Amino acid sequence: MRALCPGSFDPITNGHVDVIERAAALFDEVIVGVGQNSAKHNLLTPTDRVKLAKAALAHIPNVGVEEMSGLLVDFCEKREVTVIVKGLRFASDFDYELQMAQINEEVASNRGFKLETVLLPATSRWGTLSSTMVREVASFGEDISMFVPKAVAERLGDGSEPQEPTLEV
Amino acid sequence: MRALCPGSFDPITNGHVDVIERAAALFDEVIVGVGQNSAKHNLLTPTDRVKLAKAALAHIPNVGVEEMSGLLVDFCEKREVTVIVKGLRFASDFDYELQMAQINEEVASNRGFKLETVLLPATSRWGTLSSTMVREVASFGEDISMFVPKAVAERLGDGSEPQEPTLEV
Amino acid sequence: MRALCPGSFDPITNGHVDVIERAAALFDEVIVGVGQNSAKHNLLTPTDRVKLAKAALAHIPNVGVEEMSGLLVDFCEKREVTVIVKGLRFASDFDYELQMAQINEEVASNRGFKLETVLLPATSRWGTLSSTMVREVASFGEDISMFVPKAVAERLGDGSEPQEPTLEV
Amino acid sequence: MRALCPGSFDPITNGHVDVIERAAALFDEVIVGVGQNSAKHNLLTPTDRVKLAKAALAHIPNVGVEEMSGLLVDFCEKREVTVIVKGLRFASDFDYELQMAQINEEVASNRGFKLETVLLPATSRWGTLSSTMVREVASFGEDISMFVPKAVAERLGDGSEPQEPTLEV
Amino acid sequence: MRALCPGSFDPITNGHVDVIERAAALFDEVIVGVGQNSAKHNLLTPTDRVKLAKAALAHIPNVGVEEMSGLLVDFCEKREVTVIVKGLRFASDFDYELQMAQINEEVASNRGFKLETVLLPATSRWGTLSSTMVREVASFGEDISMFVPKAVAERLGDGSEPQEPTLEV
Amino acid sequence: MRALCPGSFDPITNGHVDVIERAAALFDEVIVGVGQNSAKHNLLTPTDRVKLAKAALAHIPNVGVEEMSGLLVDFCEKREVTVIVKGLRFASDFDYELQMAQINEEVASNRGFKLETVLLPATSRWGTLSSTMVREVASFGEDISMFVPKAVAERLGDGSEPQEPTLEV
Repeated sequence: MRALCPGSFDPITNGHVDVIERAAALFDEVIVGVGQNSAKHNLLTPTDRVKLAKAALAHIPNVGVEEMSGLLVDFCEKREVTVIVKGLRFASDFDYELQMAQINEEVASNRGFKLETVLLPATSRWGTLSSTMVREVASFGEDISMFVPKAVAERLGDGSEPQEPTLEV
Repeated sequence: MRALCPGSFDPITNGHVDVIERAAALFDEVIVGVGQNSAKHNLLTPTDRVKLAKAALAHIPNVGVEEMSGLLVDFCEKREVTVIVKGLRFASDFDYELQMAQINEEVASNRGFKLETVLLPATSRWGTLSSTMVREVASFGEDISMFVPKAVAERLGDGSEPQEPTLEV
Repeated sequence: MRALCPGSFDPITNGHVDVIERAAALFDEVIVGVGQNSAKHNLLTPTDRVKLAKAALAHIPNVGVEEMSGLLVDFCEKREVTVIVKGLRFASDFDYELQMAQINEEVASNRGFKLETVLLPATSRWGTLSSTMVREVASFGEDISMFVPKAVAERLGDGSEPQEPTLEV
Repeated sequence: MRALCPGSFDPITNGHVDVIERAAALFDEVIVGVGQNSAKHNLLTPTDRVKLAKAALAHIPNVGVEEMSGLLVDFCEKREVTVIVKGLRFASDFDYELQMAQINEEVASNRGFKLETVLLPATSRWGTLSSTMVREVASFGEDISMFVPKAVAERLGDGSEPQEPTLEV
Repeated sequence: MRALCPGSFDPITNGHVDVIERAAALFDEVIVGVGQNSAKHNLLTPTDRVKLAKAALAHIPNVGVEEMSGLLVDFCEKREVTVIVKGLRFASDFDYELQMAQINEEVASNRGFKLETVLLPATSRWGTLSSTMVREVASFGEDISMFVPKAVAERLGDGSEPQEPTLEV
Repeated sequence: MRALCPGSFDPITNGHVDVIERAAALFDEVIVGVGQNSAKHNLLTPTDRVKLAKAALAHIPNVGVEEMSGLLVDFCEKREVTVIVKGLRFASDFDYELQMAQINEEVASNRGFKLETVLLPATSRWGTLSSTMVREVASFGEDISMFVPKAVAERLGDGSEPQEPTLEV
């Protein structure tokens, strides 16, 4: 069974790695789909995000990283993905995930294939970590090595990615 | 008693139609107020949104569709609306609706009239449907006829409304 | 249109009175249904709860108070109630109300009649008031006159209703 | 990979069947674990709950039904279960599931094995259905055939299981 | 300023100790109030709960442990407590805490003194830990030393406190 | 102990004043930090927001108002702030506050100092008030004097701050 872990991974964090490791233990093959997300202010280009995800996930044999665009259901159909895996950290994220799961299932079903969504509850260590927070902290040149894989810390750690802060103070 | 169902209806969905039918069964007259919403990326012009809402609601005799702008309380005062009706699909939407209900009530009361807000819990069939999801799916030329009234599916179904995708993958 | 405001009203609070006044302004007639609730520790007998609700609501001409038992849908069918009205104070109460609304609608529909549920968002003054809290405070002989109608404060205010405390300290 | 769907199944509903069918499509083998739940008021005996679950799930070849008691992690260790599957209908249920997932993972890890929890978001058709509501409705001799498998409706449908109502009116 | 950390502490966990240490760093003196909670199934007697809390908190000089009964506001008035401190782990716990904070403030204000409530967000390490879960696991004689102070693990760790399990499987 | 109440205060409302008064009663000194928030559409310039906050808080002796930019933890380190105080009105705001509290604590700890976050539950009077709602209402020249301090009402009350409405109708 082939699973998809979709996200913008801007950048990939230790929380993402944890979810992907767990997905890789549950399913035969996992595609990490790095999407474009026009609604967010990106820190890194898609190419950089794929490169860092590959470096961070090189230790898991049944995981591949791919850039992804267009409708999620299209991607799943072409790549024969039958299950979408997402981490769930907060109750307040559930309603959005429920909507996505149901509409993806209905659109896939309309095209004649089954598309399941499974949610993995966060582990306690990474229960509140988010790329948004990491981007914010990194934008001030702050050390982020406790939150992200080594490759990401090296890439962003020198403070050379100045970015307009986006978080509420 | 005259009720108002406000929204951006971009486009009107089967979930909206369900809420408006239920409002029309509860109150003498229902105005569907099609608002401008500068905070959202619109797919359709206000004129088109009004036209599609009229087509989708033509079967309900005590419902009218109007374009609406300015302060909601102003509109209610001018049109002698005494109750606002909104659908509620998710617990996570409630806090926003509670704020809106209380501030509308306070501003109306300050002007000397009563303005009530009632929330209709979603029916199970349309419990997670949203215009945002429908816009996203339609933007890829996907069939949306199971989610929207016939007039909307015909208008958007030919994929001629390309739009930058706005949802998280 | 006849509406039902169901509850255990043990005792009726200022928050209940606010919701019932608003329901009475929206619908022709309102029945306040005082139910038995075996899952809760009751402070007052059903008879006392009906008596106090009647005293507290005597100023609203189109409101009646009745004791109620059995299946809610049964009561609505017999008394020709077509809309259930409930106050909603917290997002965390919504999921329960959504379940109740949908199952009541399905059971009524199975019997051949329509049963709608509308939720009234709490007003800011009584947004966090509950009978449970009032019972707890009253059980220690504390003054509760700022939370309840005059008849309730007189009945419970003398501290003569000692009760085992049930709230977490 | 062997999965466990734990619950009290008092009685098994169409919502449970949906989750178990989906779990059976994801994993090699699924054990439906019928637990005792002293905190709830039971309608059916464990023996009856197992019997009805077996009847309702007979069409899924890789599913077995077992009575279960004691610590969940113990059961998983003995039966070589590596993943727990639960349906998730509401955001408000998530915090409890997160706690359970994390403590089960920690206790299992302490004993030297891996125990994963995956949550399946409810399908729209059964998004708000619960055994509690079904028990309540059945307790009044009401028809419940639209909510439960055929075997359950036959067993409870004759109203011969009178039960003290436990829901708030 | 004297603060109160109320709870049933049945038993005190590492999460409680974390909140109390943080309260002790914010305020001059902290009373840990061990309450009776008739709504919960207790594992330990009040005397034992006080004894274990004292052992677990002996390292914090400005913390005292006391048994507590009656109305919380009464206790605060007698002991000249002006601020209540509670940990907050989940969004779903907030509505209850908000109710308690507001009613305590109103009752205190009615008696002529100020009573503030402050909520400390959980640290990530103990973000989902609860006495209920610990009681459940301990009831099966399972090792709980990673969740509780040493004194508690020694007291409960020998499995000599058999208890009817109360959690949903 | 020096506390920080951070926010964009665009404009300061009666709800903010309530939280700051309570913070000033708990801690020796309170800095009100007026931040830039590029993610929000601002109504007032930072200079104006500081000026209005100073006018609204002039009655509290141990409160100062400062403009603030850059990383919050930086500001706290330079100004020797050891506790951040935020109001909490809704359960749905908690998950964000929990994330902020934990990442601020980790970044501060990485730099060698302790940074605590305390949340004050809203009082019932201002439980649903927000700057966003006030901005919206003020943008139509509506009277906002019941929601904001006198200085703010005078500054915005003449309707001379036209602004594109940003709220959903």
